[in-house]
Amino acid sequence: MTAGVPHLTTALTGPLLKLEAHLLERQAEVECWFREQWLQTPAPFYASVDLRNAGFKLAPVDTNLFPAGFNNLNPAFMPLCIQAAQAAVERHCPRARRILIIAENHTRNLFYLESLETLRMIFEKAGLEARLGSLRDDITENLSVELPSGRVTQLSPLRRKGVRVSLDDDFSPCLVLLNNDLSAGIPAILQGIEQQLVPPLKAGWSTRKKSDHFNHYHAVAKDFASRVDIDPWLVSPLSLQCGQVNFMEKSGGECLARNVTSLLGMIQRKYDEYGIDREPFAVVKADSGTYGMGIMMVKSADEVLNLNRKQRNKMASAKEGLVVDNVLIQEGVYTFETIGPDQAVAEPVIYMMDHYVVGGFYRVHTGRGVNENLNAPGMHFEPLAFAQSCISPEKCENPDAEPNRFYAYGVIARLALLAAARELA
Amino acid sequence: MTAGVPHLTTALTGPLLKLEAHLLERQAEVECWFREQWLQTPAPFYASVDLRNAGFKLAPVDTNLFPAGFNNLNPAFMPLCIQAAQAAVERHCPRARRILIIAENHTRNLFYLESLETLRMIFEKAGLEARLGSLRDDITENLSVELPSGRVTQLSPLRRKGVRVSLDDDFSPCLVLLNNDLSAGIPAILQGIEQQLVPPLKAGWSTRKKSDHFNHYHAVAKDFASRVDIDPWLVSPLSLQCGQVNFMEKSGGECLARNVTSLLGMIQRKYDEYGIDREPFAVVKADSGTYGMGIMMVKSADEVLNLNRKQRNKMASAKEGLVVDNVLIQEGVYTFETIGPDQAVAEPVIYMMDHYVVGGFYRVHTGRGVNENLNAPGMHFEPLAFAQSCISPEKCENPDAEPNRFYAYGVIARLALLAAARELA
Repeated sequence: MTAGVPHLTTALTGPLLKLEAHLLERQAEVECWFREQWLQTPAPFYASVDLRNAGFKLAPVDTNLFPAGFNNLNPAFMPLCIQAAQAAVERHCPRARRILIIAENHTRNLFYLESLETLRMIFEKAGLEARLGSLRDDITENLSVELPSGRVTQLSPLRRKGVRVSLDDDFSPCLVLLNNDLSAGIPAILQGIEQQLVPPLKAGWSTRKKSDHFNHYHAVAKDFASRVDIDPWLVSPLSLQCGQVNFMEKSGGECLARNVTSLLGMIQRKYDEYGIDREPFAVVKADSGTYGMGIMMVKSADEVLNLNRKQRNKMASAKEGLVVDNVLIQEGVYTFETIGPDQAVAEPVIYMMDHYVVGGFYRVHTGRGVNENLNAPGMHFEPLAFAQSCISPEKCENPDAEPNRFYAYGVIARLALLAAARELA
Repeated sequence: MTAGVPHLTTALTGPLLKLEAHLLERQAEVECWFREQWLQTPAPFYASVDLRNAGFKLAPVDTNLFPAGFNNLNPAFMPLCIQAAQAAVERHCPRARRILIIAENHTRNLFYLESLETLRMIFEKAGLEARLGSLRDDITENLSVELPSGRVTQLSPLRRKGVRVSLDDDFSPCLVLLNNDLSAGIPAILQGIEQQLVPPLKAGWSTRKKSDHFNHYHAVAKDFASRVDIDPWLVSPLSLQCGQVNFMEKSGGECLARNVTSLLGMIQRKYDEYGIDREPFAVVKADSGTYGMGIMMVKSADEVLNLNRKQRNKMASAKEGLVVDNVLIQEGVYTFETIGPDQAVAEPVIYMMDHYVVGGFYRVHTGRGVNENLNAPGMHFEPLAFAQSCISPEKCENPDAEPNRFYAYGVIARLALLAAARELA
């Protein structure tokens, strides 16, 4: 599936709340509010946000401060990325002429390397010398990798000398960009460097907690909702949390079961209020970690009480061996965006540089249902680049017309970005 | 002629100097230099720059701080304009939620109104309420005008109350954007207002002098050239000036003749140095004013000594009756960009918002030669929108490939923008 105009069929049950129409109508208010917010809390250097669109509700489910997937964006909107990258560099390190990008360790994933090379090219075109560095022990000299796109990318071993990191001894720029989420902990080589490291080390998953992010998100959504006069529930998933859960030792299960029951009840009351005839579901998430590890969908408390060994293993093992303790129980948001004759489920992912929305794509998955996690390990999705930008709403068109839906995505994604900004502040 | 891929045939004589290749090779240096410059001297709110590309040389001939022609830009790059407009608003008045755009007085020119409406839409999409105000005495109530594009635009009379200007009494935003070049002088209604007025009143042609601009430009070009190691002549027209010229009274003619002869000699020496087999020509320009009024092309001093009455009238009457006194004698830069089977002359015009290059188009004129002024009163041109952005150079392509040529345009246009910034500082 390549870039093109996606014809999305939104299979809605229940009343369609015109959230998009409302955001469009209040656009000046929305943008003015965001400008004020960024003055108070500057945006992270970059981010991607996974959204779920249930038609009656549009909410973020994951905010990635080390985004991959740049290769899935529409090439037509690369200039927008380049311009925003220039703005981001100007704000963080205006005198930079070079940038060192630190890669994830799963460097055998060619799709990830395509994303990295696209990211590198964005900075090159923005007018910086840009190179890729790796933290892997087994990369001891410059490694060239031929990519499926036909491009060749180069990874170099990151070296430490005094209070600076460099590649090849002489490439030691003032600006170091992390594209590694630090799930395995903060590596010694990055500690105490004098260079400008963005995002900061505390943005990594060794420090960051999903519950913190969503606590900030709820506050952001509440502020925003009161400013533009909507119910905050329309843009945020309800959530509860449990501390001290150990899936392997089966401790903390009562808290989980109690909170799942409680959350499902809260969702049901909201569904009743809006006349939504769907079965509520909850998502149980490990507080740290990514890649869809440690995530489970449940429709009753029984499901968390009666986990089999395989399920417990899955919940206990987040990426690179992070131990699960705190657990987030979040309202599941249905995805009612589907595409094509097979009604494949489509989940939007929005990309931002500084506070600018630079594009997005749909994760399109044919084998999964509307209430399943689209970002699970081993899962296969086809990216479908957004055909238009997210910053060009058309007031004279239908509120659900493509540019307007994309605009709404960009608004909600920026709410998540603002939550991340407050989280890091 | 509509937006599409222009196939330009550059009919070069003499050695083609690879200015584009050089800028491309030094891109990181170029962009780093610009970032430093904008820190020292912030860019004007917006601008357009007319360039001439002689193949061996690429130089600005006019810098407009009240740009029109936004309707000629490629609609595909509107998101780039919108994003840059957001950046410009954030820098000048981050708390703005509305913007009042003050129009030129020639409001019967429907092409101009198309540009204004496009500009208004850019700000609307950027998330501001945007309206158009007029200074004309004969506009006493809101005036709706149907445009050739089918859009309807609305002009409202500008009102003054105390230290603020407004439309309809209640539209009185903190940000007032001038799109009127003030050739007729600074109107009383705009003097001493407390609102943020951009560009400032002194950017208008009642104050601004072309000779100031080009003096700053020469200094900018010199700095830039030494930083990226080129001959500054490759990016700047040689120029001289005469004060106290009165074409009607035939005074100051000796100075003009002497300087024309001197300048033609200087150009010839440069042509000899680079082996360019072309006849030098000079452009005589009134120091203030625009729209191609008060401009004359000459190949010898005799031409300025023997002006007929009609020519003298033309030189003496700049827009809205400005009297010509100081006169600029500038190196004429050949346009060696032609398009189509008729070899129509094409002159690039580059648009910027804040310091971001947001697009451009070619003025394509079939009835004129390579050394004639393409922006003359009553002239007819067809706009040809750039097919690609100016910020996405492709190092793996030919240095003269479209994205690279557009990148070079953007670099030279920003030199002119920087000169304007220093002029206003």
